[in-house]
Amino acid sequence: MSKKLKIGVIGLGRIGQIHLSNLMHHIPGVEVVIASDLSPESHAFAKNLGVEEVTTDAYDVINHPDVEAVIICSPTPFHVPYTVAAANQKKHVFCEKPLDVTLDAIYAAQKAVSENGVKLMLGFNRRFDANFTNVRNIVADDKIGDPQILRITSRDPGPPPIEYLKTSGGIFLDMSIHDFDMARYIVGSEVTEIFVKGDALINPEIKEFGDIDTAVIVLTFENGAIGVIDNSRKAVYGYDQRLEIFGSKGMAKAENNTADNLVHFDSNGGNISLPLHFFLERYETAYRVCLKSFVNCVLNDTPSPVDAHDGLMATAIGIAAMKSLQEGRPVKLEEVISHTLV
Amino acid sequence: MSKKLKIGVIGLGRIGQIHLSNLMHHIPGVEVVIASDLSPESHAFAKNLGVEEVTTDAYDVINHPDVEAVIICSPTPFHVPYTVAAANQKKHVFCEKPLDVTLDAIYAAQKAVSENGVKLMLGFNRRFDANFTNVRNIVADDKIGDPQILRITSRDPGPPPIEYLKTSGGIFLDMSIHDFDMARYIVGSEVTEIFVKGDALINPEIKEFGDIDTAVIVLTFENGAIGVIDNSRKAVYGYDQRLEIFGSKGMAKAENNTADNLVHFDSNGGNISLPLHFFLERYETAYRVCLKSFVNCVLNDTPSPVDAHDGLMATAIGIAAMKSLQEGRPVKLEEVISHTLV
Amino acid sequence: MSKKLKIGVIGLGRIGQIHLSNLMHHIPGVEVVIASDLSPESHAFAKNLGVEEVTTDAYDVINHPDVEAVIICSPTPFHVPYTVAAANQKKHVFCEKPLDVTLDAIYAAQKAVSENGVKLMLGFNRRFDANFTNVRNIVADDKIGDPQILRITSRDPGPPPIEYLKTSGGIFLDMSIHDFDMARYIVGSEVTEIFVKGDALINPEIKEFGDIDTAVIVLTFENGAIGVIDNSRKAVYGYDQRLEIFGSKGMAKAENNTADNLVHFDSNGGNISLPLHFFLERYETAYRVCLKSFVNCVLNDTPSPVDAHDGLMATAIGIAAMKSLQEGRPVKLEEVISHTLV
Amino acid sequence: MSKKLKIGVIGLGRIGQIHLSNLMHHIPGVEVVIASDLSPESHAFAKNLGVEEVTTDAYDVINHPDVEAVIICSPTPFHVPYTVAAANQKKHVFCEKPLDVTLDAIYAAQKAVSENGVKLMLGFNRRFDANFTNVRNIVADDKIGDPQILRITSRDPGPPPIEYLKTSGGIFLDMSIHDFDMARYIVGSEVTEIFVKGDALINPEIKEFGDIDTAVIVLTFENGAIGVIDNSRKAVYGYDQRLEIFGSKGMAKAENNTADNLVHFDSNGGNISLPLHFFLERYETAYRVCLKSFVNCVLNDTPSPVDAHDGLMATAIGIAAMKSLQEGRPVKLEEVISHTLV
Repeated sequence: MSKKLKIGVIGLGRIGQIHLSNLMHHIPGVEVVIASDLSPESHAFAKNLGVEEVTTDAYDVINHPDVEAVIICSPTPFHVPYTVAAANQKKHVFCEKPLDVTLDAIYAAQKAVSENGVKLMLGFNRRFDANFTNVRNIVADDKIGDPQILRITSRDPGPPPIEYLKTSGGIFLDMSIHDFDMARYIVGSEVTEIFVKGDALINPEIKEFGDIDTAVIVLTFENGAIGVIDNSRKAVYGYDQRLEIFGSKGMAKAENNTADNLVHFDSNGGNISLPLHFFLERYETAYRVCLKSFVNCVLNDTPSPVDAHDGLMATAIGIAAMKSLQEGRPVKLEEVISHTLV
Repeated sequence: MSKKLKIGVIGLGRIGQIHLSNLMHHIPGVEVVIASDLSPESHAFAKNLGVEEVTTDAYDVINHPDVEAVIICSPTPFHVPYTVAAANQKKHVFCEKPLDVTLDAIYAAQKAVSENGVKLMLGFNRRFDANFTNVRNIVADDKIGDPQILRITSRDPGPPPIEYLKTSGGIFLDMSIHDFDMARYIVGSEVTEIFVKGDALINPEIKEFGDIDTAVIVLTFENGAIGVIDNSRKAVYGYDQRLEIFGSKGMAKAENNTADNLVHFDSNGGNISLPLHFFLERYETAYRVCLKSFVNCVLNDTPSPVDAHDGLMATAIGIAAMKSLQEGRPVKLEEVISHTLV
Repeated sequence: MSKKLKIGVIGLGRIGQIHLSNLMHHIPGVEVVIASDLSPESHAFAKNLGVEEVTTDAYDVINHPDVEAVIICSPTPFHVPYTVAAANQKKHVFCEKPLDVTLDAIYAAQKAVSENGVKLMLGFNRRFDANFTNVRNIVADDKIGDPQILRITSRDPGPPPIEYLKTSGGIFLDMSIHDFDMARYIVGSEVTEIFVKGDALINPEIKEFGDIDTAVIVLTFENGAIGVIDNSRKAVYGYDQRLEIFGSKGMAKAENNTADNLVHFDSNGGNISLPLHFFLERYETAYRVCLKSFVNCVLNDTPSPVDAHDGLMATAIGIAAMKSLQEGRPVKLEEVISHTLV
Repeated sequence: MSKKLKIGVIGLGRIGQIHLSNLMHHIPGVEVVIASDLSPESHAFAKNLGVEEVTTDAYDVINHPDVEAVIICSPTPFHVPYTVAAANQKKHVFCEKPLDVTLDAIYAAQKAVSENGVKLMLGFNRRFDANFTNVRNIVADDKIGDPQILRITSRDPGPPPIEYLKTSGGIFLDMSIHDFDMARYIVGSEVTEIFVKGDALINPEIKEFGDIDTAVIVLTFENGAIGVIDNSRKAVYGYDQRLEIFGSKGMAKAENNTADNLVHFDSNGGNISLPLHFFLERYETAYRVCLKSFVNCVLNDTPSPVDAHDGLMATAIGIAAMKSLQEGRPVKLEEVISHTLV
């Protein structure tokens, strides 16, 4: 692999900076040619890491003659426009989730990617966490037999500011979307129906703009399995990311990661460590492995491990979830999705 | 407590024998006067334990002049008739779950008990398991704050024979009813709505008579909390009985009990013990504590810890669960229950 | 097994009462004919459990014509005299540990037992704890290969009163003796050398009469394995009873038992349960299984699972331990034991 | 911290490469000026990471005018010569363990360091593992009270080649030395006496040159605590690195780290993950934190967290351990160490 993949990064917010650091330090076989962001601080950050060229214009990245692949970390509304533009320039695309909050935009992105014969990979980084990858392997190896019940617990340590929430697209497309992707990944089958029970138990204010902060979500899968996700925007003890898959031959579960494996006993009881604080800590390695997978799929011309269809389904499940919440009934995926990608 | 409570036992099947053994060996302050059952083997069992009088007629127990309290372990259809007859004889009643599968019968039992001023306690033994009692105490002590999400996993090691299932009243009244009671007990609030997603994933035959063997059940509580129960008739690794309650101040969970606390590592991995096999092993102590609670509430004239209202609600939730499964929609408890007990 | 074994119990202190309760309630196939103790309260205790005859004279038990087996729970100095007297009366003997604190007395007991062809079993109850029995089985099944390192942690929740300690025979014969027996049981090989490092770190007063309360003990086994025991008279978090055996193919370890399997997380951390408080709680079942083993070995005429040789070795190791502590050097067992039992 | 610390690296074997990678990628505030090693592959490795100058002569590093601090990763016999030479050039020194296998050499190094007013830090990386750092903090915060018993388990996944072992200096100076340092670090007190029981249970061949592969080591501390280390060169289930400290107020323990937190149950039992394979995986982060600590202590002119005295004591304990093994008796540290460093 002597040839290096030439990469351009669009957007240097929190996630963009993580991806850029990983590209510069931890991922062999790549060269970051250019990065774009509006803020001067981000430019300094990139320069300091050794990126030679910075710009405020994303199209400078997309159109850069040396760039072979772009990493899109811009706000969600720009995901599809940049993906389409990059694909039309024959650039491979790694795009943060969600690809878009409407299905039509996702179809458009997929069309551009497909017609131009480039790779598109979505940043569902949790699939690359060792715990979840290994649970998936256990399922794929038939060690639990036919999947019957899936349980995902996904709780944040605290809600984002209310101003953010107002424009976030709602809990399903902002937060649960990771769990929707995880559910499909672990079970290995498509979701056909969803039922949501949710409420604003942490901050009732957010109900005013139609959002919730606590949810229990029931998923039905094509293969007969039934799944349940519980979401909360605020677990005071930290980021709670566990799952369990139960089947005809057994059960596999992944517990939280902690900073250490200590137990301290005194006369009052035993004390164990809290989960790692939030996604930056918990998924630090997963971000790296995720991006490395993209680089490898481009360099080796193998299929994208998380493609446009995966982005479509995650968004579609999110849309159906909102419909279920609003109408108080189970919603079939076919109600919100007329056709799937080819 | 020098006076002994004189007890009669009706029904010496599996549970009746457990209760009788506990009464004879482990519960001070009682004297078993008489026991009834149709089978001669059961009579020998009782005699061998030291019970002086045995009979085939339950009414010999109910009407026995010395008997102050009866323990009803007969098949479900006899629960209410015996309860009413015993109450009318001013006898206190401990009755196995469910009190009945119809709400009208439960109202009738409650009326008799109430008019005669006797105690009625239902055998929801799991409330007396150390794990669940302690979780309840943590919730009651406000250590997790306002309950927001409840998760119950309740899976049997294997299904009963299909002949039994045909007359069992269905998974909700036969198996999940314990979880419905547990849900109300742990959260400390009434269930107002239920949604069920279920299927016959283990043995499709049972669908023919309208039953299922795998279910995910969403409960909404009066206090705003949302609960989810997952049930399976067959966990190949044993009896899986766990729960978790999540709230504004923290989370408490109870893991399975095992026969030992061993870890064995070899070059292939680490091996830990399976959960205790089934309810007889897991709830051995709980059965004892449960019955002792009944004896104490009678001797000390304190309220029954699990009363007719608890029986009514568990059955009502079960009926609503079946309605939800059949109609594919969330069902409000008020649809199946017109009035509650006083 | 229609014939019942007729038993007499000598000594109704704490352990005697546990054994008597188990005999009356939990062990089929036995009949307690008579029990002896000096205190009237003990007599009432026995009567209340249903023992027909009580006495203040141990020889009434030993000489009782119906008694076939005696359970000796008297203070240690009486263990051997009663064992010898009972053996001479052709009675089988179950005796609490230690059989004696001198080797000569143990030889005498063994001689009487052997000449009269009766069974002698010692109350090393921990061998019958599910954790330790299962670890032993793992070793015996060659699942860890050749044993190389044994680790025993054995710590009491608090020291007995200093008055008791003065006459206890010292930490090795009073407390560590259980661990010496456990070490031989788990490794399945004889101890050949011992080295002790100890101190009075909890209560320096006990040094005045030559005792210690904290010890680290190194054992060398005939099969080459090396063992280490750590003892403390005071673990503020409760009774700490763990062990681990490491070998050429793997490792097995037994963790503490707890009253429940709860985890409670709040913003300060996770809280787990303390170990069961002390030996009565931890070894409740083991006491029962231990005594049942004695009854079975008598009724089925099988070898005693814990015989005079086991008693001899445990005491000999204790004597060598004291010598090592006093002389500050490793002591070979052959220095304190001239010959073993046949 | 705008000024960068200019560093030279001596020795690019396994550990040297780890340090160099960390310096180049993960430690801000440093610039690697030059690196030395005999092998051309190592030069390519360094060049590839971005080191501008490479050499085969360690003195090119030590004497390089820009170098302010050297990282010594050469074979042990060169540790002291290079340390002395660097100190005389007024360069700060980070040196791999052990500083030397003789105490006189260590005194010489300490003298040079002290007279030249430079920093010397030893690479006892385990002190910087999150588990052990946090246990130390628990002890330092008096949360376990007065330390009474220390237990360290330290077992390698497999022995090095016998050719390596022949020149390794023996198990105590090659392997246990990490545990000797850890013991002093955790307890916070000096070792005064040592007793070793050991054998060649894995490969009897190594006995021929006076070495062993299995050891139980008893340490006595100045503050009265007693410690025990168990070492094995071969744990088939992986790298086993645990410790436990017990005191008057409680106990703290660190369990192994694993690659994931999975549990997989099937009908045969529950399966958990093995410990991380070996020190490169287990101490990956610790190596980084360790080196960062050195850089910080130089840049901020704070005391070295692991200084020459620590190196002296670890080696002295190792020498006493060998004496104890050979003479079969406890050895006081004062027998092998006439004076300590100032």
